[in-house]
Amino acid sequence: VTTLLVVGTGLIGGSFALAARRAGSVARVIGFDRSAAALTEAQRRGIVDAAAADLADGVAAADVVFVAVPTGSTGAVLADVFGFGPAPSQVVFDGASVKRAVIDDLRRRLGTLPSGYVPAHPMAGSERHGPAAASVDLFADCDVFVTPEPETSAAAVERVAGLWRSVGARVREASGANHDAMVALTSHLPHLVAYAYMRVVAEHLMPDSPDDPLLPYAGPGFRDFTRIAGSDAAMWRQIVEANRGPVTAHLDALTQVLARLRSQIASDRFDELQAELEVGRRAYRSLSGADANSGEEGAT
Amino acid sequence: VTTLLVVGTGLIGGSFALAARRAGSVARVIGFDRSAAALTEAQRRGIVDAAAADLADGVAAADVVFVAVPTGSTGAVLADVFGFGPAPSQVVFDGASVKRAVIDDLRRRLGTLPSGYVPAHPMAGSERHGPAAASVDLFADCDVFVTPEPETSAAAVERVAGLWRSVGARVREASGANHDAMVALTSHLPHLVAYAYMRVVAEHLMPDSPDDPLLPYAGPGFRDFTRIAGSDAAMWRQIVEANRGPVTAHLDALTQVLARLRSQIASDRFDELQAELEVGRRAYRSLSGADANSGEEGAT
Repeated sequence: VTTLLVVGTGLIGGSFALAARRAGSVARVIGFDRSAAALTEAQRRGIVDAAAADLADGVAAADVVFVAVPTGSTGAVLADVFGFGPAPSQVVFDGASVKRAVIDDLRRRLGTLPSGYVPAHPMAGSERHGPAAASVDLFADCDVFVTPEPETSAAAVERVAGLWRSVGARVREASGANHDAMVALTSHLPHLVAYAYMRVVAEHLMPDSPDDPLLPYAGPGFRDFTRIAGSDAAMWRQIVEANRGPVTAHLDALTQVLARLRSQIASDRFDELQAELEVGRRAYRSLSGADANSGEEGAT
Repeated sequence: VTTLLVVGTGLIGGSFALAARRAGSVARVIGFDRSAAALTEAQRRGIVDAAAADLADGVAAADVVFVAVPTGSTGAVLADVFGFGPAPSQVVFDGASVKRAVIDDLRRRLGTLPSGYVPAHPMAGSERHGPAAASVDLFADCDVFVTPEPETSAAAVERVAGLWRSVGARVREASGANHDAMVALTSHLPHLVAYAYMRVVAEHLMPDSPDDPLLPYAGPGFRDFTRIAGSDAAMWRQIVEANRGPVTAHLDALTQVLARLRSQIASDRFDELQAELEVGRRAYRSLSGADANSGEEGAT
């Protein structure tokens, strides 16, 4: 019988707790949250069976510990958990969006990296957060990365991978550095750009207008493009802060492309512009599984 | 009994034909398309009842003409239509994404702006195109802008507005210049940025790899953010070309915000960065109808 301690009972921790218990891979869930309100809400929603009086009690009672807190506090909370000395049979994993910064932080705090710690990151999220946003199906068909270090025990990796598989996720292994470079490109840069774009839009909104004249111009494309700008700003600030190197590199690459498009527009080189757009479209279609050459022209 | 001629039987023209006939606001649909294949496909799908032998024949047989062709050819096709001298009882409207360039082009070609021409733009679209993408429900709950000029007949505007209402759209009136500035912000800039972003991603893809290592990193946020980059590049080149002034102005504003965020990251001013993200998030939530202050923190 496996008892899970979930530290941080929000979207990620709460969804994992719901899904693991439904799957039967976890029999009992203990919750701990810095926010008493969140913890009460998680109990009310049946996400956790019991609230830990404190972190030490929670760790002592658990076989498996999932630290699902914001990126910026993950290293510190992991260090706290290991400060209560989990037994060799216990495994601890996190879900932070950035791996190198968390691993380095933990190693610095402890002077060593515990073999029972498995760095992990589920590629799932929502612009909503908190226990109310938790969903038993969040990880169905989701990719979860584990990024073990030389110190990490293979048995711990396999145990954590099994838990993620039990909730419907595909588990993939990568180096922390590789993972961070990839998510900087596919997730962190889009969030930064969506926020920046909405920052521009904000200048054109009527302050405090409940029925802004801009609203009818915000069609389905706008809504898809901007959805991630509804995410929690404090959370994304921490992710960008923890992954600043790769994020900055990709941001610079984007700025260069935008400058090139800008100069093509200004100097009437629209054939070149179209060729750039076409490269982007082919990349989109190759990643979305669509045939890059499908679609018909229906236009006079 | 109203006969509609739809010039360009793709996504927009085809969807309008399907919806207007279902609504009963149009009894018969004649189609014309530069592409014989598209026209045949539109007939096969029941989008048009008959194919016009040529544009002159189509105009002669119709009460209402919808010119639904790419932005860059809209002015020329409208001029062709008016070259066949529609009777005063006939109305002609277009659906181009940019209004000023089309209106100016038509006025230049004809030396005057016909009172029976109603500039229009439905805020609907898809990354798919052609008759196969046409959908009877595309305009349900959609905003359609009409941007009449001083020459435009009020009766013609009312007739065209009635047709759009019949297919479930909300009709709004704006000046062409205002419309173009707004769509540059809410639609044209996002498309340009999504393409530019995918242009950066393209550099990291394995050429010709059907199962690219980047794929598992492309989560739901990525897919929403990039969906519009699947749109037809030739079409979007024309839109940007026709609306270059407003698009460039907004692009410059975005570049400035990105440079500011870049400098905040480089100089460790993450509190300032978070404040910028928060302004963007509030704007998003105000436009998406969400309460900007809702959501809970569920994190230790």
